[in-house]
Amino acid sequence: SGKSILFRLLMWMSRLSGSDSIKTLVFPTQTSTSYVELVPQKPLNLRAYTMCMRVATELSGEREVILFAYRTRDYDELNLWRELDGRLGLYMSGEGIIFGVPELGPLQTHLCVTWDSTSGAVALFMNGRKSLTKIYKKGHTVQPWGQVILGQDPDNYVGGFDEKQCFIGEILDVNMWDSVLPDSTIEDMFAGRTAPTANVINWGSTALLFQGNVHIVDVER
Amino acid sequence: SGKSILFRLLMWMSRLSGSDSIKTLVFPTQTSTSYVELVPQKPLNLRAYTMCMRVATELSGEREVILFAYRTRDYDELNLWRELDGRLGLYMSGEGIIFGVPELGPLQTHLCVTWDSTSGAVALFMNGRKSLTKIYKKGHTVQPWGQVILGQDPDNYVGGFDEKQCFIGEILDVNMWDSVLPDSTIEDMFAGRTAPTANVINWGSTALLFQGNVHIVDVER
Amino acid sequence: SGKSILFRLLMWMSRLSGSDSIKTLVFPTQTSTSYVELVPQKPLNLRAYTMCMRVATELSGEREVILFAYRTRDYDELNLWRELDGRLGLYMSGEGIIFGVPELGPLQTHLCVTWDSTSGAVALFMNGRKSLTKIYKKGHTVQPWGQVILGQDPDNYVGGFDEKQCFIGEILDVNMWDSVLPDSTIEDMFAGRTAPTANVINWGSTALLFQGNVHIVDVER
Repeated sequence: SGKSILFRLLMWMSRLSGSDSIKTLVFPTQTSTSYVELVPQKPLNLRAYTMCMRVATELSGEREVILFAYRTRDYDELNLWRELDGRLGLYMSGEGIIFGVPELGPLQTHLCVTWDSTSGAVALFMNGRKSLTKIYKKGHTVQPWGQVILGQDPDNYVGGFDEKQCFIGEILDVNMWDSVLPDSTIEDMFAGRTAPTANVINWGSTALLFQGNVHIVDVER
Repeated sequence: SGKSILFRLLMWMSRLSGSDSIKTLVFPTQTSTSYVELVPQKPLNLRAYTMCMRVATELSGEREVILFAYRTRDYDELNLWRELDGRLGLYMSGEGIIFGVPELGPLQTHLCVTWDSTSGAVALFMNGRKSLTKIYKKGHTVQPWGQVILGQDPDNYVGGFDEKQCFIGEILDVNMWDSVLPDSTIEDMFAGRTAPTANVINWGSTALLFQGNVHIVDVER
Repeated sequence: SGKSILFRLLMWMSRLSGSDSIKTLVFPTQTSTSYVELVPQKPLNLRAYTMCMRVATELSGEREVILFAYRTRDYDELNLWRELDGRLGLYMSGEGIIFGVPELGPLQTHLCVTWDSTSGAVALFMNGRKSLTKIYKKGHTVQPWGQVILGQDPDNYVGGFDEKQCFIGEILDVNMWDSVLPDSTIEDMFAGRTAPTANVINWGSTALLFQGNVHIVDVER
């Protein structure tokens, strides 16, 4: 049809200009009810992973902020927090590990976490720069069949939200791989160059389930 | 043999993907007992040198931190310190020279020191940017047959460690040359481009002797 | 001669390795007596100019610092200052113009000033980034037959130095052209790419006259 031809023409033009569209999530207000569930490409049965996102927030000062939550029925399997004092904390079913990195802010930060069970090596990357490596949960396995939540911290299996911990701001480009990506690959992703296809959570193709006041916006990259 | 063929296949695959492995040292806690000795490729009989490393640490505030120590039986021949106030100090058997450069932090800093006996010129490089040049120990020679130590400051020939001065964090890519490398070469190394083979300490091939609680991790570059 | 052949061989080898040597000036201490006079390639009879240098200093806080002084018998024809509050000020025989740019520091800054008499347009460049343009001394001419001084501010024709205003740190790569260079040319110079030959002051060929405690060092680029 004419509409289909116009659509293909637009797609072709967008490809010519080198531009790409990406969806982004805006959490505008403090609530205990708004969140987005991401449907992974496969169960999170993980002995190693790389998890990346782009995040921007005006939250600052003494405020906990949940950035990423993956919870099974009984455990917080993989939570990433902004701590009360601005540092970032990773929690995998139990005590966490804290990184004293520069604070998140209103300009987008490209944030990655890598973890490998064999060595226990865990590191953060902010805008392509790697933090010091720490040793954490050597020999551990992340358990499958839970739920991935952005915007709230579930204190039980999707529920028990606390608005004082909710995320306010913008999150996009959340991707997860079941391996530790090379440092140079993460530098490439930060710089907007090629990225390997994410096989655990893939922002381009993952289904999103919305609850409450969350906006989805298409932006040109 | 079959094993050798598998090895060569893996090498070939790793080269195809453009990735490279590098070892990194994690010093997780404050001790007066954990350190790593590096075995140089040749004696440190030096009238000029370039010494580089990548370093990340959460230590801040009023805390001395030893970054690199080379000591013979009687003298601290070549020590690099973070001073109490965050500045960096270089000590070659006696009084040191201090650089008021930006502080080290939890994101990796690529750090180099160059020194030349003929002119006495000494300079730091942080992430490829050169500090001001200073004049230090003109005509001096670094003496051979000592020990290179990461993680502790030996107050006598490998011993007399003070936990208040120990290193906590991550150090990798420690290399030393017996000449002053050009500024542009150091910029290239920071950016991960080609580097001349290090002939005094070579991180790729140096033997490491471990004492206490130090982790070694392989990371992909 | 054999010496000449050896010299040409060394030049040819240095060109092969892509390295280049550049001289740099180190002012180590506070004095009212140490300075360097630069002998220009031609008189500074200027209706437009571009003046560039690389500079590194640990001076900070409330301290005036002279960066470049060109004085005839009666006037400060062209002085570049770090002001008491860290801003940069340009003075051409009389009242100056102030730029609220980022502070100089211990890591080298590539600094340029451009001025054109016809429009009065004056701008700074720091590490290739251009400041806002201001209007200053439209129709003015810089007068010839003065002296170019680094390290001190002459309050009369080479004399009357004040150690509270002296430069401490490192200055190199001081060049001056009798025209306003394009922005992209200045970016290229910052990045160490090609530069047009400087026709007023040429760092590669200018004669330097030393007074007091100033060191000259050759560094490889």
